[in-house]
This record gives sequence, structure tokens and C-alpha cells, in this order.
Amino acid sequence: MLVIGELINGMFRDVAKAIQNRESDVIQHLAEEQVKAGASVLDVNVGPYSKAPKADMRWLVESIQKATDAGLCLDSTRSDCIEEALKVAKSRCIINSASADDMKMEAIFSLAKKYKAQVIGITMDKSGVPNTKEKRVELAAKIVAKAMDFGISAEDLFLDPILLPINVGQDQERTIIESIREFRQLCTPAPNTLVGLSNISQGAKTRSILNRTFLAMAMANGLTAAILDPLDKELMDALITAELILNRNIYCDSFLEAHRKKPDGV
Amino acid sequence: MLVIGELINGMFRDVAKAIQNRESDVIQHLAEEQVKAGASVLDVNVGPYSKAPKADMRWLVESIQKATDAGLCLDSTRSDCIEEALKVAKSRCIINSASADDMKMEAIFSLAKKYKAQVIGITMDKSGVPNTKEKRVELAAKIVAKAMDFGISAEDLFLDPILLPINVGQDQERTIIESIREFRQLCTPAPNTLVGLSNISQGAKTRSILNRTFLAMAMANGLTAAILDPLDKELMDALITAELILNRNIYCDSFLEAHRKKPDGV
Repeated sequence: MLVIGELINGMFRDVAKAIQNRESDVIQHLAEEQVKAGASVLDVNVGPYSKAPKADMRWLVESIQKATDAGLCLDSTRSDCIEEALKVAKSRCIINSASADDMKMEAIFSLAKKYKAQVIGITMDKSGVPNTKEKRVELAAKIVAKAMDFGISAEDLFLDPILLPINVGQDQERTIIESIREFRQLCTPAPNTLVGLSNISQGAKTRSILNRTFLAMAMANGLTAAILDPLDKELMDALITAELILNRNIYCDSFLEAHRKKPDGV
Repeated sequence: MLVIGELINGMFRDVAKAIQNRESDVIQHLAEEQVKAGASVLDVNVGPYSKAPKADMRWLVESIQKATDAGLCLDSTRSDCIEEALKVAKSRCIINSASADDMKMEAIFSLAKKYKAQVIGITMDKSGVPNTKEKRVELAAKIVAKAMDFGISAEDLFLDPILLPINVGQDQERTIIESIREFRQLCTPAPNTLVGLSNISQGAKTRSILNRTFLAMAMANGLTAAILDPLDKELMDALITAELILNRNIYCDSFLEAHRKKPDGV
């Protein structure tokens, strides 16, 4: 399971402030803490309040790299911000994200090809977020095919069905789990699958139990990566236990401590 | 989800003692506590130390019925003990269990027919516990077919793939989850599926997290019933949350409290 830490995101007030004031120690501390807790990749997002997203993205990447050589998940809707980060990134990156729209895929896959990056492909297009498994799988297949056109293998894709908050799209959660299962069956070797886990509990009062229960359910159906809060200990315990049940770690009495950090995920 | 409380079992020392000394208050308290915590059926097992299993089984059923009208899951390898209980049981019973052996199925299904009981069918036979999904599904199909011969519908069966302890059959856990998924696809309406949940953590040091993580994973693949400890609050929280994610309860901010006891399971 690939754990992508979600905490370096300018939507959080302390991160936004650290970006604005160039407090690299705040960012580096967040990077180190997440890696220590089991993240092997860190999401990097300047957030909605950034006035200079290109410069901020570059500064974030450079700051993080002074603290860790973890992989980076470059999270921006702007291709120029993504490329600015790719230019200075030292480890292999994941681009977050391409939708199933042709122009978007062409822009992102060109960058991915040029910088040997991996890509998160979200199964939505201009007509919005699908509400059936069939439509999600159709868009997933479109993304995989387009990636192949660019010489990007399915294994370098992370297909994301877009996890909806339980208080908004409750009837969609089961469909999303079944979509993940089918994404894995699209081709061999299989594409990776990913969710932004915290989405499910957006706006809910008891967040952690929703996150960790959904995670176990999705892992039992082929989820191979998640953007999540690795500092949520109970969530990481559930993740380690699900990995154990799926026979990806060997049981020992102290498995929660012993498997706390598995080097390279997936 | 049908919750079957596991605590009235003579393998627990205090229960064995209560049976021996005919302390019905001990048994009734266990019955009430389990029902209060969300069990709608109670497993009844005289345990390995009983010297008079028929009389003990009857006494247990009569004692429990003075405290609650919950369903009973009659857990014995002996058909005469099962029948002794069926004779005095007032609510509908589940017989625990029939293996896929012809003689066993004939004995149990005859009783089920006579007393209008439901049956747990365990997918093993004289050659032992299978280690492939295919063999488990083959035995499940054999059980469903034999039940139909007796006029017992698939909905009145609980197919049990036999959950192995993680420290014994770790490579089997995923196969067991996939078997549950296929059991549900055997026919329409689908047979119920069941596990003895605590089995997975038998002999393990950290039991509850193994139980609740496996439960969520199995529920995401069609598990409709489990024999478990309803007094494990974190386990019941996970169960309620998984039900919510599967859209079987409606989200509200206080869902953990609001859905604490759903009257009739499944």
C-alpha cells in the first residue's frame, strides 16, 4: 500500500502561513513527521490562498527535499505549477492529477513522459463526476488507453474514482468500492488505484472511524494507494492490519509496531 | 448485518461454571448485555466440559428465554442436543452447523425442516478445510443444492467459509473474503454468509483490531452475518460504520449512537 501524506497543503491555515512567510522549518517538520509515521510519498499543494502558486510550489518542493528524499505528489490544477515543481524535484514524482478530458490528459501525460513521472487519473470529465460504476470504468479505460499512447504504462497510473463525502454521496460509496475492483481488472499488469481518503468524512463529525473503515473496505477490493493523514495512528493501525490480512506482511505478535514503516509501499 | 452474540459458550470458564451450578442469573445477564449491545441472535453452546450436554442445552435455552426473545443460534456437533433445544425454543432458531457431508446435511436439514429453523452450512467435508476458493464455492453449491432438496431456501442458509486464525492460515484470509463474495453470487435470492469472527485473532496478541478490520473487509464483499462479541464497542462501531458506507443506514452526525441497535439485522 502506497501511503501519500496529505498534510502539506495550503488549505490548512498553518501551512498557508508557513508558505507565505517562507517558514521552511514548519514544512520540513511536517514532512519528517509524515515520513516517520509511514508515508513514502508527500502530497504538495500550495492551497487556494496562494498568490504566487508557481514560486510557492517550487519553494515547497525545495524545502521538503532538504528534509527528506520521499517521493512527491504534485497537487495542482495548473500544468505550469506542476512543471515548475518537476524541474526541481529530485525523486520520482506523481502528478495529481489528470481528468479524462483529452486536452488535460495530453498536457499531463506530456509532462509525465518528459520528467518520467507517474500520474493520478481521476475518472471524471467535463460532464462531471459519474454516478455509475460503468461510467467510471469507461473513463478509467479511456485514461489507460491515452496513457499508453504516450508510452506510460498502467502501473505508472493511479486511477482515482473520486471519493464522495458520506453526507453527500452515501449511495455512491459502494459503487466506488466496486469501481476500484474493476479498475484493477482493466489490464495486466494492473493500474494502481487511489483515493483521497479524507474526502469520505468531509463535513462529518466522527471522521477517523469513517476514514479507516472505508480504507479497509477499499483495500479488500484492490485499493493500492491513498492520500491520507499518516499521523492518525488508528488509521495507520487499520492500514497495517488490512495489509496483514491481505498477506502482504507476515504475522508476528507485534505486527502493528513491526510493520509500522514498510519502505516502498504498493 | 445479523449480529450473533458469541458469549454464551461453555468454553468460557464463568459460563461453564454457571451451567454446572444452574446460575441462570449469570446467563440471563450475558443474554441481556449482548442484546443491548446490538445482538439480535445469541449463540448457545454448552462447551467442551459439559457432562450432560442435552440437559445443559435445554436449561440454557430455557434460561435465556426468560430474559429475552432474541433468536437463538444452537451451536453443537450433536443433533440430539440441537433437537432438545429446538423443542423448547420459542423464537426462530439457526442451527450451527452442517458440514457439506451428505449424512450431516441430511440430519441437520431434516431438523431444520421439522422446526422451521435456519442453518449455518460450513464449507468443509470429511477431507477437511479447503484451501482454495474454488473448492469452498463447490462445497457451498453442494450445501445450497441439498438444502433445496429439503425445501429450505438459500435465504435460510448462512454459508460459512471457516475463518482461519491469522497466525495459522494467513495466506487463506484473502481467499476467504473472495469466497464470501462468490457465495453471494451462487443464486438469487442470495444465500446469507457468515463467519465466526473471533477465529481470525485466535492466539494473536492484539485481537480486537484484527477482528474489526477483517469484518469491514468481509462486509465490503458480501458478508451478511457474524458470530462475534457485541460487547467489543470498537468492533460494533466498525460494524455500524461499514453498514453506513454500504448505504444500509442513513448518515446523520450521531450515526454511531443512532444506529447502535438495528432491530432485525441482515
